[in-house]
Amino acid sequence: MPVELTRRTHFAASHRLHSPHLSDEENRRIYGACNNPYGHGHNYYMEVTVEGDPDPSTGMIINLTELDDIIDNELVKRVDHHHFNYDVPFTKDVIPTVENLVVAFWSVLAPRLTRVRLKRIRLWESENNSAAYSGPPQTSQAADRE
Amino acid sequence: MPVELTRRTHFAASHRLHSPHLSDEENRRIYGACNNPYGHGHNYYMEVTVEGDPDPSTGMIINLTELDDIIDNELVKRVDHHHFNYDVPFTKDVIPTVENLVVAFWSVLAPRLTRVRLKRIRLWESENNSAAYSGPPQTSQAADRE
Amino acid sequence: MPVELTRRTHFAASHRLHSPHLSDEENRRIYGACNNPYGHGHNYYMEVTVEGDPDPSTGMIINLTELDDIIDNELVKRVDHHHFNYDVPFTKDVIPTVENLVVAFWSVLAPRLTRVRLKRIRLWESENNSAAYSGPPQTSQAADRE
Amino acid sequence: MPVELTRRTHFAASHRLHSPHLSDEENRRIYGACNNPYGHGHNYYMEVTVEGDPDPSTGMIINLTELDDIIDNELVKRVDHHHFNYDVPFTKDVIPTVENLVVAFWSVLAPRLTRVRLKRIRLWESENNSAAYSGPPQTSQAADRE
Amino acid sequence: MPVELTRRTHFAASHRLHSPHLSDEENRRIYGACNNPYGHGHNYYMEVTVEGDPDPSTGMIINLTELDDIIDNELVKRVDHHHFNYDVPFTKDVIPTVENLVVAFWSVLAPRLTRVRLKRIRLWESENNSAAYSGPPQTSQAADRE
Amino acid sequence: MPVELTRRTHFAASHRLHSPHLSDEENRRIYGACNNPYGHGHNYYMEVTVEGDPDPSTGMIINLTELDDIIDNELVKRVDHHHFNYDVPFTKDVIPTVENLVVAFWSVLAPRLTRVRLKRIRLWESENNSAAYSGPPQTSQAADRE
Repeated sequence: MPVELTRRTHFAASHRLHSPHLSDEENRRIYGACNNPYGHGHNYYMEVTVEGDPDPSTGMIINLTELDDIIDNELVKRVDHHHFNYDVPFTKDVIPTVENLVVAFWSVLAPRLTRVRLKRIRLWESENNSAAYSGPPQTSQAADRE
Repeated sequence: MPVELTRRTHFAASHRLHSPHLSDEENRRIYGACNNPYGHGHNYYMEVTVEGDPDPSTGMIINLTELDDIIDNELVKRVDHHHFNYDVPFTKDVIPTVENLVVAFWSVLAPRLTRVRLKRIRLWESENNSAAYSGPPQTSQAADRE
Repeated sequence: MPVELTRRTHFAASHRLHSPHLSDEENRRIYGACNNPYGHGHNYYMEVTVEGDPDPSTGMIINLTELDDIIDNELVKRVDHHHFNYDVPFTKDVIPTVENLVVAFWSVLAPRLTRVRLKRIRLWESENNSAAYSGPPQTSQAADRE
Repeated sequence: MPVELTRRTHFAASHRLHSPHLSDEENRRIYGACNNPYGHGHNYYMEVTVEGDPDPSTGMIINLTELDDIIDNELVKRVDHHHFNYDVPFTKDVIPTVENLVVAFWSVLAPRLTRVRLKRIRLWESENNSAAYSGPPQTSQAADRE
Repeated sequence: MPVELTRRTHFAASHRLHSPHLSDEENRRIYGACNNPYGHGHNYYMEVTVEGDPDPSTGMIINLTELDDIIDNELVKRVDHHHFNYDVPFTKDVIPTVENLVVAFWSVLAPRLTRVRLKRIRLWESENNSAAYSGPPQTSQAADRE
Repeated sequence: MPVELTRRTHFAASHRLHSPHLSDEENRRIYGACNNPYGHGHNYYMEVTVEGDPDPSTGMIINLTELDDIIDNELVKRVDHHHFNYDVPFTKDVIPTVENLVVAFWSVLAPRLTRVRLKRIRLWESENNSAAYSGPPQTSQAADRE
């Protein structure tokens, strides 16, 4: 069994829940106050979990400095103090629910974590509400790793 | 892989650990202060995790408003500010350990969450003590979903 | 010495730090990413502290139900899921720093808390950043109460 | 200015809000679910703050071991896993609101903390609700210390 | 499906990250400030998760008193207020990264938890950094239990 | 009444409680495990509270960027991942109890916070244990500000 390492990071951002597939009235009924036109925001907490075997010479799965650099440069700097609907390239075409965000974040981070296995991303938009994702359906070879 | 959505809710309740299968002396020895006759209580935190694929037109697995209504009406309102041993119909015949409570809660919630898959319920009775349950043994068909 | 009672509530909102007294360049230099044009948001936690002597017949300084109604109706409902710069009447003409917000909130709440003494409002915009305010300079009579 | 030292402790207890000065109907109207006949409970967190000058030979205002012994023996052991209305001698004649409890706790702890100055007791009955007390009106000599 | 029971405990300890397989310069480059010669420390939080079926006569998977005794005597007392590099027998020959510590802790606890199945140990060295381990590769028989 | 602004920061450090004014036996008796020869450590959380009137042109008492620079450069960088007894110049001659540390930290920070009034430093060495300090006795002129 590999060891899991989880790193929690934080950013603040804005979003508005509004679907182009729905009428304005449906948007208001389904999303309620989350559909308010000027948007609202959250302190998001993101937990990135990687897994692997500790390197015998360092005791580490991955150097936290390296993991932090990837998380910060690829993700946090691009969303922190931004508005998911307007100025984040990889979320502006997505309805920024916490479910959709965690999938979008996986797509950004997974290709960058090449030397360690990305296991799960959990995203909290409040202390009462979070989503977690473990990646797209895997090929049988990849599934064997489970 | 589906997306998990976790909703945390809170309620305050009382309980007393006392088993009808044990003598008074055994009850005191096994449960200690938890067997005190007048009971004691906790601020319980419950995490309900559902999983599924986000609906492309809304970005949601389930509308949080709908999920909250189910959790509140079926469970929280029936236990909040109540005593598990005396005035909660679905726990008064159960020894209200955190293990038994989480199984009892599953029995109440699972049948109501028909449009989304209930994945796990975690119940905290203190910040140092929790139980989690993922449902009764499943048929092979259901197990395939894992 | 009176007893203090503190009630914590939560709301999510957006803001953008931008001063009309400064040039665009100064705004960017002083506020950094907080000046990003589309704004960002937070999960705000507000602690309202009132003080007084418990009523001997009820044991309460003020009924929490009544206090909650005032806090919710006068303040939380007007800011939750809103943008401080655009659609909150009592903050849209204020630079919405946490310092200015807590003073604006005092102005809204203090006149409504007539049956109990408002002691302090603390507002957290993140778990690392908060402001607290205890009201405007008081007359000597009021100051005596300190 | 002296240094303040704050020790947080935890206990679980039950209570029911019911006033002997009120009719049953008034009790239900004023206390709502807190008046439910079987009571309910909380995980209480208590912060005891003492102040003084650190002893130059030890660097301590008071040895935490000694402070813990006083808090545990005089207070925590007498309320933990108990019901404030029935089996706690110093609260059973009090309506156990958080305001009244914090005053009752002061009366128990203050006389035992003779070698250090008790500054404040704060009692949390939930993460959103707390009361704080700094003792009864003091003589002018004591007030000078403020 | 069995029920999981998780117990969180706390201890304070020191460590220094320094690998005997690396040069001093490599140690400084890889571990940064964690390689400072005098070490540094953390408030560690450990979550021990066991699983099983609640005993019908007690409602418990394992008596928390028994579980606490094992965790405290076998592990917490041996690390609390100690330095992992110098005076903890089962970690002094290990580079005390959080990944290696959680594996070492498994080796200590697993053999003592004979009447209940150890499911997972999670160790937090800060609120932003944790590792989790579910044991060494299992034989097919043991794997069946999954 | 001025507005208070509180900034929370974090660092990890080691210490050993050992007084040169006491015999080895007294040290062991008074400090217990905190006197263990290799020391132990904590995740310290420090809350720095400043107060003043928000600048009308910026809405800020002090720019958080400036406040963070002072706190980080003057204090956090000098203690983070260090051992208070050995490699922190301003604490190595002090018994590093939380009471003494908070006074030592005041001495370092207060002279650097010249454009804003330092109100209070609170230092947590665990979630159950903190000290707070508001500075040395002030002249009557300064005391008037209270």
